[in-house]
Amino acid sequence: MDVITTVRGMKEYARAIKDRRETICLVPTMGYLHEGHLELMRKGRTLARHLFASIFVNPTQFGPSEDLARYPRDFERDRRLCEDVGVECIFYPSVEEMYPASYSTYVDVEGVTRHLCGASRPGHFRGVATVVAKLFNICMPDVAVFGEKDYQQLVVIRRMVRDLDMDVQVVAHPTVRESDGLAMSSRNTYLTPQQRMEALVLKKAIDRAKELVGQGERDTSRIKKAALDLIGEAPSASVDYVEIVDPDTVEPVGTIDDRAVIALAVRIGSTRLIDNAELKAP
Amino acid sequence: MDVITTVRGMKEYARAIKDRRETICLVPTMGYLHEGHLELMRKGRTLARHLFASIFVNPTQFGPSEDLARYPRDFERDRRLCEDVGVECIFYPSVEEMYPASYSTYVDVEGVTRHLCGASRPGHFRGVATVVAKLFNICMPDVAVFGEKDYQQLVVIRRMVRDLDMDVQVVAHPTVRESDGLAMSSRNTYLTPQQRMEALVLKKAIDRAKELVGQGERDTSRIKKAALDLIGEAPSASVDYVEIVDPDTVEPVGTIDDRAVIALAVRIGSTRLIDNAELKAP
Repeated sequence: MDVITTVRGMKEYARAIKDRRETICLVPTMGYLHEGHLELMRKGRTLARHLFASIFVNPTQFGPSEDLARYPRDFERDRRLCEDVGVECIFYPSVEEMYPASYSTYVDVEGVTRHLCGASRPGHFRGVATVVAKLFNICMPDVAVFGEKDYQQLVVIRRMVRDLDMDVQVVAHPTVRESDGLAMSSRNTYLTPQQRMEALVLKKAIDRAKELVGQGERDTSRIKKAALDLIGEAPSASVDYVEIVDPDTVEPVGTIDDRAVIALAVRIGSTRLIDNAELKAP
Repeated sequence: MDVITTVRGMKEYARAIKDRRETICLVPTMGYLHEGHLELMRKGRTLARHLFASIFVNPTQFGPSEDLARYPRDFERDRRLCEDVGVECIFYPSVEEMYPASYSTYVDVEGVTRHLCGASRPGHFRGVATVVAKLFNICMPDVAVFGEKDYQQLVVIRRMVRDLDMDVQVVAHPTVRESDGLAMSSRNTYLTPQQRMEALVLKKAIDRAKELVGQGERDTSRIKKAALDLIGEAPSASVDYVEIVDPDTVEPVGTIDDRAVIALAVRIGSTRLIDNAELKAP
C-alpha cells in the first residue's frame, strides 16, 4: 500500500491509472477510522479497480470554537486498517500542502446548506465542498463513497457534483451503528462511559419518530416534540437541532407526505453528535 | 466543425478525445467575436491537438443593473469565424442547460477579487469562476487561453486553478487593439462615433502612465492623478476606477518597486470599458 503526501505525487499516481483507462474509487475521511469508514472502503473496493482513501483533518470545515485541535488522530492505526481492508493508496497530505499561503478559493453550495448543520456550523459545508472538490481534482476518482450518517454533507456533495458538472459518481452507504444503535463516529471517543450510555437518545429519538410515522402520524411538529421529550430525559444532552426535512432540498417540512428525513444534532456534554434516518409514510 | 449544445454531449465528445490521450485547448468566450478572440483561438490551435471554443453569455457574472439583456449576440457570424480560424468544436449551451432549476453552487475566489472590478461589480468574479470551473469540467481542456485585457479575470482563474488543483494550464494572450490603440471588446459596438473617439482616453491614460514610469516616477498617486486628468478631458468619460496594483495580489501599491499593473474602468456614455498594462520600472 502506498502513502502519498503531496498533491503533485497523488495527481501523477492517479493520472497514470487514468491514462490506462482504469477506474478509481475514493473514500475521503478525516482518519481515526472506525467500522463505518471500513464499510465504505469495502463497498468502494467493489466499485472500481483501484481503491484510494484520503486521510485529512480538514481545518476549513471546523469553526473557530470547534474541536479541530483535539480531533482524534492515529495515522499508524489508520494505515494498518486501510491496508487490511484492501486500500491501494492513502492520500495523506499536510494542511500546508492542501492550503498553501495565499490560498483563497472556496466552493459554496447554497440552499441545501441553509438549515441543520449549515445553520449551526456556519462555513462548515463551504469547507467540506472545497476540500472534496480539491480531493476529486487531485485523486481523479470515477466513484466516491460517503456515509449517510452525514446526511446533509451527502446532499451538498451530490449537489456540487451535479452543479459543477464533475465527472464523479457519488455513492452513499447506510450509517453503520454500534450493536446498541449508536451511529459510529470518530467523536464517540470523546464520551465518558456515562455519556456513552446517554448518547443512545439520538437513536431512540429516531426510533420513536419512525414508530409514530408508522402509526400514521404526519404532523412533523408532533413528531419533533416526541423526539425532543425523549432527548430531554438524558441529563447530559442538550439539543442543537431536531428537524424533519425534505430529502432533496433539506428544507423543513410541516407534514410528511411520502418520505422525509429526520436529522438531529445533540450535544452530550461537550461532544456534538449527529444522526438521521428516513421517515417513510406507510 | 461541430456545434454542441448539451453538457452531456460535450462531455462525451471531450471524453472520447481524452480516452485517446489526445490534448484539448479551450477558448472560453461570450461570443460576438472580434479579432482579440480570434487571436486567442489561433494561439490555442498551436497548444493542443483539438481546439474547442465555448460561446456562452454567462448570466451569473452580470449584476442586476448590467447589460446582460442587451449584450451583443450573433451566433451565425461567430460560427463562421470559428470555422475559419480552425475551431473543431463549439460548445454553445443555453442558460437552462448550464444553470438548471435549483442550481446552487458557486466558486468564490477571495483576496484577488477585493479591488478593481471585484469592488465595482459585486458577484462578477464569482460568476466568472463558477462558469469557468463548469466549462473546464465539461470540456476537459489541457490548456485554456484567456486574454490579458481582462487582467483581474486572468488572475482569478489562475488562482482558482491553483487552489482547487485543477489539471488545466492557463495561457494568457496579450490584449489585441484596434489600429488606433483601443482595446478590442464586444462592448465597443455600443459606442457612437463620437464616443468611439473619446474611448481612446483609456489607452492614452495608460501610455501617459508608462511614460511617467519611464521618466523615473514611482509614486502611484502622482501617476494615477496624471491618468485621471487625461481622462477628465473626454466629455463623455466618467471614471469607475484607475488603480495601480501588484500583479499577483491585485492589491493597490503606493510605490512601483519593480513592476505593477495599471488597470482602469471608464464609462464612455453608458458603456463601461476596461483596459490595463504592465508598468515596469526601467
